Amino acid sequence: MGILHGNAVVGQSGGPTAAINATLAGVIKGALFCSDIDVLYGMKNGVEGLLREDLVDLTALFEGKEEDLETLSLTPAAALGSCRKKLGAPDKDGETYEKLFEIFKKYNIRYFFYIGGNDSMDTVLKLSEYAKGADYEMRVVGVPKTIDNDLAATDHTPGFGSAAKFVATTVKEFKRDISVYTVKAVTIVEIMGRDAGWLTAAAALPSVTGDGPDLVYLPERTFDEEEFISSLKKALDDHPAVLVAVSEGIRFSDGRYVGEGTQSGAVDVFGHKYLAGTGKVLEEMVKNRIGCKVRSCELSLTQRCAAHIASGTDISESLTIGAAAVKSAAEGSSGVMMIFERSDGEEYGVSVRTESIKGIANEIRKVPAEYINEEGNGITKEGINYLLPLIKGEISQIYVDGMPKHYVI
Amino acid sequence: MGILHGNAVVGQSGGPTAAINATLAGVIKGALFCSDIDVLYGMKNGVEGLLREDLVDLTALFEGKEEDLETLSLTPAAALGSCRKKLGAPDKDGETYEKLFEIFKKYNIRYFFYIGGNDSMDTVLKLSEYAKGADYEMRVVGVPKTIDNDLAATDHTPGFGSAAKFVATTVKEFKRDISVYTVKAVTIVEIMGRDAGWLTAAAALPSVTGDGPDLVYLPERTFDEEEFISSLKKALDDHPAVLVAVSEGIRFSDGRYVGEGTQSGAVDVFGHKYLAGTGKVLEEMVKNRIGCKVRSCELSLTQRCAAHIASGTDISESLTIGAAAVKSAAEGSSGVMMIFERSDGEEYGVSVRTESIKGIANEIRKVPAEYINEEGNGITKEGINYLLPLIKGEISQIYVDGMPKHYVI
Repeated sequence: MGILHGNAVVGQSGGPTAAINATLAGVIKGALFCSDIDVLYGMKNGVEGLLREDLVDLTALFEGKEEDLETLSLTPAAALGSCRKKLGAPDKDGETYEKLFEIFKKYNIRYFFYIGGNDSMDTVLKLSEYAKGADYEMRVVGVPKTIDNDLAATDHTPGFGSAAKFVATTVKEFKRDISVYTVKAVTIVEIMGRDAGWLTAAAALPSVTGDGPDLVYLPERTFDEEEFISSLKKALDDHPAVLVAVSEGIRFSDGRYVGEGTQSGAVDVFGHKYLAGTGKVLEEMVKNRIGCKVRSCELSLTQRCAAHIASGTDISESLTIGAAAVKSAAEGSSGVMMIFERSDGEEYGVSVRTESIKGIANEIRKVPAEYINEEGNGITKEGINYLLPLIKGEISQIYVDGMPKHYVI
Repeated sequence: MGILHGNAVVGQSGGPTAAINATLAGVIKGALFCSDIDVLYGMKNGVEGLLREDLVDLTALFEGKEEDLETLSLTPAAALGSCRKKLGAPDKDGETYEKLFEIFKKYNIRYFFYIGGNDSMDTVLKLSEYAKGADYEMRVVGVPKTIDNDLAATDHTPGFGSAAKFVATTVKEFKRDISVYTVKAVTIVEIMGRDAGWLTAAAALPSVTGDGPDLVYLPERTFDEEEFISSLKKALDDHPAVLVAVSEGIRFSDGRYVGEGTQSGAVDVFGHKYLAGTGKVLEEMVKNRIGCKVRSCELSLTQRCAAHIASGTDISESLTIGAAAVKSAAEGSSGVMMIFERSDGEEYGVSVRTESIKGIANEIRKVPAEYINEEGNGITKEGINYLLPLIKGEISQIYVDGMPKHYVI
């Protein structure tokens, strides 16, 4: 691959995380240092905004503004806005591709960076394939982000560590909170994760200081009501305050989502079933079958945007992977996603490299069997060892008027 | 009042907060420095544990342990455990009082400190009254704590500032999160507060940086569905992502709780109606009457135990008021609650003094009319000015394995 000189565009897509702006800041830093890129544009609201030519000149905005980049990297959610648009196949949605390439040509955009999750990597795959056939050289690189940690090929995803740190901290604080009374009571914490239980697994992290939940249920294992009730009874015999962490996506053996009944089969724009209320369903089970005090809490939006307790490791890695994406593209990469590879050995470390986007897009990486205990209601030591380094390190958040400072584009 | 020499006991009661252990740490510090107190006992689970003589020698535990006291002050929930026990009237529950005073005599307890909310101050009132008639000198001092901020006489309550800081920060982070999409959507945040809307009012604090919610509803004003829908429509005409903060305790004009239908009239041990689902009821209203995307989130347990983002002002004041309680008691105070008095003038400052417990216990201090806007759907500048100093300042939390370090007694 030769030198490719021109402009670049970056977008954010999919659900927000606490670290997606750190990756954006990384891409901006990378572009500011890259002699092959003149202007880095930001597309507002992903490809939706790009199609409207709703672009912002990030080079002009951030050149020489180290402090603003720092604030941006600690601001939750997508500063450029996001979208849920999925590109159709080029043979069915040709008009959209033509329109996009018109815009690329108009702005001399030679680099396309897309920060997102599974559905966003599908966009990267399609665009990079289409670019090959187009008479216009452009390099397309995906940068992962998702609190779900369910993208294939990479050791973990930017954004996951911060969500995991919030979940682990909150579960530890819940442990303190629920332990003050002597009355038998069950507290159920419902955590995001439709298909993969990574974030729910992070609820087990306080176990390293003896503050873990009693039971943890992931979507990787079939949910068995009898096992749940019997394990709960055993825990309640041992101590009064019992804590359960459960993924929104757990299913019964017949494949039905446990929380399905409560949301009348609503689906999001990708056709994924909208789930809420898994905790409520378990709460009813406990009420009916055990009869003790019980409550459920959904961590809801907070778990994906609690940037005030972002993981230092996650924010630093998210910056690094963003800058690395620019470097790789300048060196010739296209049709790739940036991934983390974990070093062997005792001490935690990662390196960043590219991986072909084929075989990543639309794949879901689940929690492996060896991270889940035999009973299917807890996380193994191996799982804890995988998760723990990702939540370590604290950020230096700037507070104004007692609240975290944010950067708004 | 003369010098009274002997031992002391301290207990925590009512719902946990992020600062109740800071107040406990303050009482411990005060007792360690007080020459009139030999041993400070901690009662496990409030008066319930005291009746079982479940006592821990806090003097032995913390003497010369500055670092442990520091960790304790940043640990959420009640380290001594809590209870919801309400003492009966002495003429009806005489046996309990006799038993308690037997225990006081046995341990030579001359000072009784009780850290709690409204119901706990009722215990302080009854015990201090009974002590007057008993042939045993004992001084009884209440130290307030409640995230609800609804105790009479004091400018604010320890614990409120930290809960308010979490609420304000979370609402600001939600504002970032919901603003990424261009689709019209309403997000409803349900906040604790049965009778007083202080904590919900804190949701308005991000408005100082333009990140406040569009609408804020407190229990101090009757909830009017027509006003709600019409204000929402107006907001949705202006921008796509609309944020609503609502107290769990809002009621319709006929006195019914908005969330009542969803919890079948369950009551807690004090006969307070158990509320949950106010947000869900509003969500349904929006679905049916506006039809746009809508979701609701309950901040739930997190808002009362998120010590990781405790207010520096709150933690420092909570320590101070705990230590001041010991000093006041040693100087002769009894039958009092410690209160904060805010200084006049531009700069925020408080002094601590005692106030007779009569007229405090069982009184609820509501958000005054001048803090709520005319439409009843927002907080005035005056309200913001009252709230803002309480969330300022950050703590130096110690992290171990990426999670806050806690002290467990």
